[in-house]
Amino acid sequence: MLALLLCLLLAPQDDVRGVLARQVESWNKGDIDAFMTTYLDSPELTFTGRDGVTRGYRPVLERYRKRYSSREAMGTLRFSEIEIRMLGDEAALVLGKFDLTRTETGGGNASGRFTLVFRKTVQGWKIIHDHTS
Amino acid sequence: MLALLLCLLLAPQDDVRGVLARQVESWNKGDIDAFMTTYLDSPELTFTGRDGVTRGYRPVLERYRKRYSSREAMGTLRFSEIEIRMLGDEAALVLGKFDLTRTETGGGNASGRFTLVFRKTVQGWKIIHDHTS
Repeated sequence: MLALLLCLLLAPQDDVRGVLARQVESWNKGDIDAFMTTYLDSPELTFTGRDGVTRGYRPVLERYRKRYSSREAMGTLRFSEIEIRMLGDEAALVLGKFDLTRTETGGGNASGRFTLVFRKTVQGWKIIHDHTS
Repeated sequence: MLALLLCLLLAPQDDVRGVLARQVESWNKGDIDAFMTTYLDSPELTFTGRDGVTRGYRPVLERYRKRYSSREAMGTLRFSEIEIRMLGDEAALVLGKFDLTRTETGGGNASGRFTLVFRKTVQGWKIIHDHTS
């Protein structure tokens, strides 16, 4: 009952913030599979990166696996300057900054900006598009 | 009457596509002010570029004016690989590629990827966020 009440009180922004927190938590455990569950499992998923657009859940997962092939290459992820704007009741726009703290052999520190678009699904809020640069 | 009928038949995707066409047309006329009218005139407007996040209509306009300070620096703009996804009835996500054809003195050719988020407003569909990289 209390859980239900809490659930009703939570704003969609809190749900989205929760997904972002799970991203960071999964990444910092070295668990790319868990990290990926924050994305929509669909061929419609898109990721715009320095190398162009990657389409579909599996290709995006493979891209992460390839680029961050070891725990050391994953480093420690931190998000900051998070800004969440609702787009109606079932979509949200998220802006933010990421910082990756890594050893020299892991690839060294990295940082950048991201734009995420979320949709509300029966599985909860999921990223349908990610533009990271 | 015919105009009203046409208006009712036009899908939001067509409206968004029309805004993108106006962007290209205004840019290629060297008219940054007209180009900017495709963005929401609001302090909430955001632009994520290589130099971080620029906030507000006026700062985004000034950024364009500074970076493309002559007709030659603006060059000729072309969009391709446009993909429009509706986010409910009043928001849309647009992915695309831009190519700028420029003289050597204008800065040389340039290209990149963009993510745009549009909202439906009383003034028509407007860009509320642009991530270009």
